[in-house]
Amino acid sequence: MSALSQKHLLGIKYLQLSDIELIFSTADEFLEVIRRPIKKVPSLRDKTIANIFFENSTRTKLSFELAEKRLSADVINFSASGSSVSKGETLVDTVNNILAMKVDMVVMRHPNPGAAHFLATQVNATIINAGDGAHEHPTQALLDAYSIRQKFGNNLKGLRIAIIGDILHSRVALSNIFCLKMLGAEVRLCGPATLIPRYIDQLGVEISYDLMETLRWCDVANFLRVQHERMDVKYFPTLREYIMQYGLNSQLLQKLNKPITILHPGPINRGVELTSQVADGEHSIILQQVENGVAIRMAVLYLLAGTRE
Amino acid sequence: MSALSQKHLLGIKYLQLSDIELIFSTADEFLEVIRRPIKKVPSLRDKTIANIFFENSTRTKLSFELAEKRLSADVINFSASGSSVSKGETLVDTVNNILAMKVDMVVMRHPNPGAAHFLATQVNATIINAGDGAHEHPTQALLDAYSIRQKFGNNLKGLRIAIIGDILHSRVALSNIFCLKMLGAEVRLCGPATLIPRYIDQLGVEISYDLMETLRWCDVANFLRVQHERMDVKYFPTLREYIMQYGLNSQLLQKLNKPITILHPGPINRGVELTSQVADGEHSIILQQVENGVAIRMAVLYLLAGTRE
Amino acid sequence: MSALSQKHLLGIKYLQLSDIELIFSTADEFLEVIRRPIKKVPSLRDKTIANIFFENSTRTKLSFELAEKRLSADVINFSASGSSVSKGETLVDTVNNILAMKVDMVVMRHPNPGAAHFLATQVNATIINAGDGAHEHPTQALLDAYSIRQKFGNNLKGLRIAIIGDILHSRVALSNIFCLKMLGAEVRLCGPATLIPRYIDQLGVEISYDLMETLRWCDVANFLRVQHERMDVKYFPTLREYIMQYGLNSQLLQKLNKPITILHPGPINRGVELTSQVADGEHSIILQQVENGVAIRMAVLYLLAGTRE
Repeated sequence: MSALSQKHLLGIKYLQLSDIELIFSTADEFLEVIRRPIKKVPSLRDKTIANIFFENSTRTKLSFELAEKRLSADVINFSASGSSVSKGETLVDTVNNILAMKVDMVVMRHPNPGAAHFLATQVNATIINAGDGAHEHPTQALLDAYSIRQKFGNNLKGLRIAIIGDILHSRVALSNIFCLKMLGAEVRLCGPATLIPRYIDQLGVEISYDLMETLRWCDVANFLRVQHERMDVKYFPTLREYIMQYGLNSQLLQKLNKPITILHPGPINRGVELTSQVADGEHSIILQQVENGVAIRMAVLYLLAGTRE
Repeated sequence: MSALSQKHLLGIKYLQLSDIELIFSTADEFLEVIRRPIKKVPSLRDKTIANIFFENSTRTKLSFELAEKRLSADVINFSASGSSVSKGETLVDTVNNILAMKVDMVVMRHPNPGAAHFLATQVNATIINAGDGAHEHPTQALLDAYSIRQKFGNNLKGLRIAIIGDILHSRVALSNIFCLKMLGAEVRLCGPATLIPRYIDQLGVEISYDLMETLRWCDVANFLRVQHERMDVKYFPTLREYIMQYGLNSQLLQKLNKPITILHPGPINRGVELTSQVADGEHSIILQQVENGVAIRMAVLYLLAGTRE
Repeated sequence: MSALSQKHLLGIKYLQLSDIELIFSTADEFLEVIRRPIKKVPSLRDKTIANIFFENSTRTKLSFELAEKRLSADVINFSASGSSVSKGETLVDTVNNILAMKVDMVVMRHPNPGAAHFLATQVNATIINAGDGAHEHPTQALLDAYSIRQKFGNNLKGLRIAIIGDILHSRVALSNIFCLKMLGAEVRLCGPATLIPRYIDQLGVEISYDLMETLRWCDVANFLRVQHERMDVKYFPTLREYIMQYGLNSQLLQKLNKPITILHPGPINRGVELTSQVADGEHSIILQQVENGVAIRMAVLYLLAGTRE
């Protein structure tokens, strides 16, 4: 097995287990590269990659950009604000124009679920989904699973992983579920009922509304960001209620009498999802997630560039 | 003949026919370069180029940026929003400051007609006009003519080319006229009377207000973008009137019983200037224009860099 | 003496005289580099540098970016607008996230005095202060002093230097004072009483409210920018009063009957601090400041990169 089963990375749900394993073993090698003094390899020096972001995303964009530069690709950045998009051009025209300038791969963040998949059917280039609304965000899910595997060893079978907080508006929860289940983990969601979407029953995951019970059950907890800016105020528990019911602090952790590995996709609202003591504590792997993100993205870009030829 | 007659590229009106031919034959070579797997040449690796955009322009800026990177130049981008321009600095001071940092060439987009020419008289660097208001946009006109030549062979003499739509606000119409006429083509303008400027009589082009008659006459039609955002509402035919009188659809094309090569500078308002069937049809060379744009800009940058020494 | 006494460049007040001398002699070499046709050296090709700007700053950012690229570093740019900062992330989290992606050095502009110093105590990377409010802007002060030294020779001892205008809101006045005094110059401030901060007495500089008297005294005058956008209207002399009392024109210069070397950190408000005749006159070294800025920043980046290992 030496190639991905896919030409694009549109979502975890299109990947096979062997794809994920190949991405992880390739990321192992790139993680060594970026820990060296000279963090670059010439692998993609004949490729031009366009980062097309129709929504702001500081950390995902920086992470992709660094991954691309460390693979020696040529990088062009296109962001929607102030672009021809505001002049009424269609998504397909925008991307086809960029591709006509001889671009090999497109990394796209878009607010609409399905945008990356639609694009892949319309244009002739490798598409990497960097988040399409609350649908999929495959590289984030891969780096989350990779970070857990880094801590727990190759086999996630039977590992109990909780995804906690605002499932409804999360960009990554769905990709997390697909990825962790494919790797054999048990996945439970936990959050206020108003922030868990209804279709979620069909995904074969348990749901809990009780943080303490969930923490007692799990080995790993991925605390999602409370997305103030996307919330419809009237359905939400107030921030204070949220913190009281779903915020993690060290008192709660001490009561558990067992270690729980803590993930967070960032940016953290300190004092909301996690107190600083927990976010910076010994069981937090939040900064490893960020480091691994560059290695995972290098692996994905590298493997998809190879697939194309 | 091996050098341009000019130190700058301010407008087509300053070029000689031999300049255009040199740019085209140089672009032929660069077009081969960017179609290779390794799309880069080291020609400008000792040059620093500043892209100074006082107006948004996604596709022109991307095209220049890619051209510069494929020539291995060092690229810095300066855009007016949030810059020292808003602090009241003059254009000449802004550019002189950038040049003092040892920049070799300046690619400038500016809203004011004449800005590039003024700058060239004031500062000591090669200036490339990437559009100065509704005045000149020479690289766009060059890539348009180059794309027509690619289809019709080296000699445009006697070829009938129509420029259709909003001539008044177009960034490129004037450059199109200068360039195509110098190459020996017959040029006709077609559009609503309110969108054709009065001085145009003096340029030796025919004017028509009748799309169907113009289409019967021409071999090539360049449909300009309807620039909603620049229009003075009260003089304009409504959008619906515009589409009815000047929009091209496949029914009209069928009536003609002859092929017409379609150009558009982009971004297209699908369903306004052109229906999707026409824009994506077999006689459209719109995406070739975009590809050729990178080659033309590489040629211009390369030739002007040589001129300077 | 072959290394800086500091790991970071947070402010002039943390430097020793030998540090400044080392930076200047290193800048001498880089100035030769950037005046060559090939303006690049491979010194930092294994480093990744993040430019993190929480405030707009066109010229400082361009200058750092060019310095980094000419040292062959990999560069990533992060600006606060539209970033995770607006999602409520703390400064330390933002920077730690960027560092987790394996970034070696951070160049930071921040509106709050002390931000760079605070950051240096919290994160594990080399921090270069590119301006923290009205506190320090060390690279600007270094390039100012370097430009004066270029004109007057190595020894600034006893040279009379006036800093004129809006001291209160200036980003660089404090760093200027520290740097010039350390080099042995005599420093005098001159401006309206409302624009000179009270603590300034403690810095051992003379204060004058009279431009003509100050000009008679000094050899060099650094005219600071009037920062309209930061002013509290009611305390300020009106712009007209300011120009009458503190603006320099060639009539005043002629009355003096001696040359005064003129500096300005830019962007210039022509007709306010300086008339065009003065700004572009033979004793102005304003554009040399800009050129030297790239060399000074190359020197600082180069020396700090060495310190880290």
